[in-house]
Amino acid sequence: MTKAQLIQQIKNKKSFLCIGLDTDLDKIPTHFLEMEDPIFEFNKAIIDATKDYCVAYKPNIAFYECHGAKGWESLQKTVDYIPKNIFTIADAKRGDIGNTSLYYAKTFFDEYQFDSVTVAPYMGEDSVAPFLTHENKWAILLALTSNKGALDFQMTEDISGEKLFEKVLKKSATWGTTENLMYVVGATRAERIGEVRKLVPNHFFLVPGVGAQGGSLEDVVKYGWNDDCGLLVNSSRGILYASKGADFAEKARAEAEKLQLEMAKLLSQKSFIEVL
Amino acid sequence: MTKAQLIQQIKNKKSFLCIGLDTDLDKIPTHFLEMEDPIFEFNKAIIDATKDYCVAYKPNIAFYECHGAKGWESLQKTVDYIPKNIFTIADAKRGDIGNTSLYYAKTFFDEYQFDSVTVAPYMGEDSVAPFLTHENKWAILLALTSNKGALDFQMTEDISGEKLFEKVLKKSATWGTTENLMYVVGATRAERIGEVRKLVPNHFFLVPGVGAQGGSLEDVVKYGWNDDCGLLVNSSRGILYASKGADFAEKARAEAEKLQLEMAKLLSQKSFIEVL
Repeated sequence: MTKAQLIQQIKNKKSFLCIGLDTDLDKIPTHFLEMEDPIFEFNKAIIDATKDYCVAYKPNIAFYECHGAKGWESLQKTVDYIPKNIFTIADAKRGDIGNTSLYYAKTFFDEYQFDSVTVAPYMGEDSVAPFLTHENKWAILLALTSNKGALDFQMTEDISGEKLFEKVLKKSATWGTTENLMYVVGATRAERIGEVRKLVPNHFFLVPGVGAQGGSLEDVVKYGWNDDCGLLVNSSRGILYASKGADFAEKARAEAEKLQLEMAKLLSQKSFIEVL
Repeated sequence: MTKAQLIQQIKNKKSFLCIGLDTDLDKIPTHFLEMEDPIFEFNKAIIDATKDYCVAYKPNIAFYECHGAKGWESLQKTVDYIPKNIFTIADAKRGDIGNTSLYYAKTFFDEYQFDSVTVAPYMGEDSVAPFLTHENKWAILLALTSNKGALDFQMTEDISGEKLFEKVLKKSATWGTTENLMYVVGATRAERIGEVRKLVPNHFFLVPGVGAQGGSLEDVVKYGWNDDCGLLVNSSRGILYASKGADFAEKARAEAEKLQLEMAKLLSQKSFIEVL
């Protein structure tokens, strides 16, 4: 998917919502467990219920990989089921020496036909570059994550006062373009998003940490907005597990719609869409 | 596998060789391509030919993942085929928020029964900790990698002159023990291994970058040795693709044996084993 197509979709749906498909057999309604492919069947129901309110789906690969070959089949079926006009993110956090990263890129872009993959920066340019060579495909690089461990290394300052996540942003911005590179920017402290926005004014951000992990949507827009919207805000558990009962899909839809309506209001305030 | 068992194996086999099973359909002898599971059949032949000379096998997961569910089946069969007294490393370079890393740990330790997984440090403690709670299983944390991109971030110095890889070593050494945590330490500049050894005197190192990527075995031992040997030195392409002909297994065995004999000499010089 191109950047222009993604922006158009945000305008059409009045939403920049990404739904994280972190499908956990311990958390889905128990009647799915009797089905042949509980993960896919649950995802299917969630996609049916929420596809009008989101512009992206993000399966976290750990939740599929832990079921072995069967889990990868569930993943394949899920990606195939997602409507083609919705952006897909393989949240895989991969990264290896160049020759090996090339195989990871092939996996997610060619074999599974994802639009994008999340990538870890520790091994540097040659570990990221192979994710930047597929036409209309994207690398989403970890910059500032939303977990507690983000403080361990990402905030380390060098002698000039530059933090590691800032160095990651500055260096990597020269490896790709705003058409093939996005950043993961956590929202646990929204002002930080503003610091990141100054360094990379034109890139899209994938923002986790709204909802279950804290962080307000209004603040994310306040600090992270750019002329393209420039934001994909993720919610996973808050939508997927809004109810464990027979009404799980209905409740998931309601949660997604609630977020979409908030987003529409913010998009309208920014004059990105017609006034509601 | 426990540390004591690993050390005993090094003594028994007079070897600290790890063989990287980076099995690439473009590089294996073409007669395998007609088989139902070329990757597993090639691995089986390589394991049969080399198992007397190595103490560890390390499949790089990218080479399996890129074939989808089928690739994961090849991986499962490969792990099951490796003799139980040989240490197994899932070279996966995973790492995510704690809840998610837990699923990656389950994947490789419970589902695939690997002894260890390589893990990326960027997301900090809670992304690594879930790999340190399975009995007799190991996390192998990226510290200093052997690729060019290692220079991008790993060598960044903070205000006190401490490099990022040094910070990773110091902090992470408090998260695990020498019984459940090893480090990836590249050998492209062997003196660096000495710097790492000073910081973590008692941990095992997984050393890539000997052979195809440069770096001499003698230097690795000179700089990286500790009282437990403390080294697993990996070779992948040099062994796997020693020949593309009908004699591939014979040539792979010869390469592995050559390395093992060099290692035996070094182990003997260090009085770790009886004089040869």
